[in-house]
Amino acid sequence: MIPFNKPYATGKETDYIKQAIDSGKISGDGMFTKKCHDYFEQKLGFKKTLLTTSCTDALEMASILIDIQPGDEVIMPSYTFVSTANAFVLRGAKIVFADSRKDHPRMDEDSIENLITSKTKAIVPVHYAGVACDMDKIMQIADKHDLFVVEDAAQAIDSYYTGKDGQKKPLGSIGHLAAFSFHETKNIISGEGGMLAVNEPKLIDRAEIIWEKGTNRSAFFRGEVNKYGWVDIGSSFLPSELSAAFLYAQLENLEKIQNKRIEIWNRYDEGLAEACSRLDIQQPNVPVYATNNAHMYYLICKDGEQRNALIDYLKEQNIHSVVHYLSLHKSKFFENKHDGRTLPKADHYTECLLKLPFYYELKIEEQDFIIEKINEFER
Amino acid sequence: MIPFNKPYATGKETDYIKQAIDSGKISGDGMFTKKCHDYFEQKLGFKKTLLTTSCTDALEMASILIDIQPGDEVIMPSYTFVSTANAFVLRGAKIVFADSRKDHPRMDEDSIENLITSKTKAIVPVHYAGVACDMDKIMQIADKHDLFVVEDAAQAIDSYYTGKDGQKKPLGSIGHLAAFSFHETKNIISGEGGMLAVNEPKLIDRAEIIWEKGTNRSAFFRGEVNKYGWVDIGSSFLPSELSAAFLYAQLENLEKIQNKRIEIWNRYDEGLAEACSRLDIQQPNVPVYATNNAHMYYLICKDGEQRNALIDYLKEQNIHSVVHYLSLHKSKFFENKHDGRTLPKADHYTECLLKLPFYYELKIEEQDFIIEKINEFER
Repeated sequence: MIPFNKPYATGKETDYIKQAIDSGKISGDGMFTKKCHDYFEQKLGFKKTLLTTSCTDALEMASILIDIQPGDEVIMPSYTFVSTANAFVLRGAKIVFADSRKDHPRMDEDSIENLITSKTKAIVPVHYAGVACDMDKIMQIADKHDLFVVEDAAQAIDSYYTGKDGQKKPLGSIGHLAAFSFHETKNIISGEGGMLAVNEPKLIDRAEIIWEKGTNRSAFFRGEVNKYGWVDIGSSFLPSELSAAFLYAQLENLEKIQNKRIEIWNRYDEGLAEACSRLDIQQPNVPVYATNNAHMYYLICKDGEQRNALIDYLKEQNIHSVVHYLSLHKSKFFENKHDGRTLPKADHYTECLLKLPFYYELKIEEQDFIIEKINEFER
Repeated sequence: MIPFNKPYATGKETDYIKQAIDSGKISGDGMFTKKCHDYFEQKLGFKKTLLTTSCTDALEMASILIDIQPGDEVIMPSYTFVSTANAFVLRGAKIVFADSRKDHPRMDEDSIENLITSKTKAIVPVHYAGVACDMDKIMQIADKHDLFVVEDAAQAIDSYYTGKDGQKKPLGSIGHLAAFSFHETKNIISGEGGMLAVNEPKLIDRAEIIWEKGTNRSAFFRGEVNKYGWVDIGSSFLPSELSAAFLYAQLENLEKIQNKRIEIWNRYDEGLAEACSRLDIQQPNVPVYATNNAHMYYLICKDGEQRNALIDYLKEQNIHSVVHYLSLHKSKFFENKHDGRTLPKADHYTECLLKLPFYYELKIEEQDFIIEKINEFER
């Protein structure tokens, strides 16, 4: 069976974990956490980053940081992972789901403004497949209505957005806050793991406090206060040095990993063009303002029947392709809370999208076999 | 400098981490997570356990599981770590702090019943230093008033309580729920890490859902439902297989680690008896119904002046002793929320308690040196 995903280790991970153990410090916020923060802040230009135990936890930190109160409304796509929504539901927010675009599974930027009410507090764009949302448009709406923007950049490491000002900015550096994932299904991994990027300077001090269980421990270790204690709500958001050591080995190999993934992505895209055209299947598109970080390769079938047939057919060939999100507005948890609007595009992607095997160690022969089999598919 | 703590690795940790990496599964709920769950359920007799990324997160799971709503009251000691309280504050609870016992830093069991109102939902006993609270008394009060009991067993691995029925039960198996810590300062570690024990059978199914981000993924993989989706609130509470692999190596060596720690504890207790008597310093006590898991060795000085002098004196001898909790009812976060009751015992331990260096690799010569120096202390 060709699996859908296979986590890749560069080889240095266990050495770094050993170093962490030998250093006598394996709880959070040690040497490797600092190395990772430095990488993001110095090499990628983020203002302030804090590793977390998951992207879910980074979103929860964001939700606490923008002070979500019961009844506050948060706008986000229905076609996303449950954690995008749960992080805000946990603080009492009412989720207002937006539909997806016709040409791409991400949230339709033009549908956002109609969903804003006096209770709206934040917009959460999800950079689906690591491809940028139209951030100029979203930031303009947010500015006009005085809203926070929390980028769900779970899939978006090493992906960029070029705005009208011509500046190329990393995804996750544009909204007030952003959440990244290092889950084993992502480009850069630590098993479970995530990161909060704090782009709004006013939120930095409180972010450190919330990260450290609601204590001013970070300020204490910088000598800014002479004892530390309970000053705010918070949680234990920081990952161990085992996680951070693993992650650092990955970050050192970012370019190598990304080059390989882009090759794989392009080989799929070229190899499947003819079959997709013949079968009326939509290939991924990347808008001019976005880069492609080769997070995944997905196909959008003409209908659910074709999608399911293709998954079954590939399974018979020992190829493991998978569906992706189920529209959250139709979930068991939310169906009675939803306001009744139909979100046909979100439903369309729920029914018609599949993801092909995609990982660093996918061999050319394996990929050629997958492409060949899809080319032979007839329904 | 003799440090206060030094995390101990048994030697197998990195081998197991390598095995996890080689298995192609390093996200949560893999082979090593199952091995750890099996250990707790089969060897220690817990009904259902779920590893978490921290004890804080296990407490947050408990708070969600018992369905804490804004305004619900939760009774817990003031002399505890911030996370005991924050986990419930995050769900809107009003914390009602109890005072400590005169003879031990744990919550005074006799003070609990006076604090119960019609809004009380739960009692959270903290097994300070791994020494059992009087669980018969607490469970009786909880039964009478229909309250949940969440054991904060952060420090309490491998410690037991023998109730009036003569049964010896592991701490964390008695209340409806219990939270453990595997932070590097604990007996058994994974850098950061924790575990929820679910002792109330009715809470097990929902615990799995909350653990898996509010989805019924666990039921899906057992074939009980044919697709999984968003069914509840939840978070990403599960740790990576890197953490679980590390933890499993520790669990395999539980007995060896514990035997060594108990030796260290006893050597302190005997070696310091005379000095403590002379200096009017209180040594730890262990009630007849409790065992001692040798989590820490602490001293309770006669006043704050003596405690601070002893810490300074030990520092001059290159011995790192540390204070412990600051009463939460007097914290910056809570002082204006507190109901004004004085909690003199909690304040006493805040001012007078210190913890001595305590870790597996503490050498006999080092410990003898610490004991000798305290014996020479004169204030």
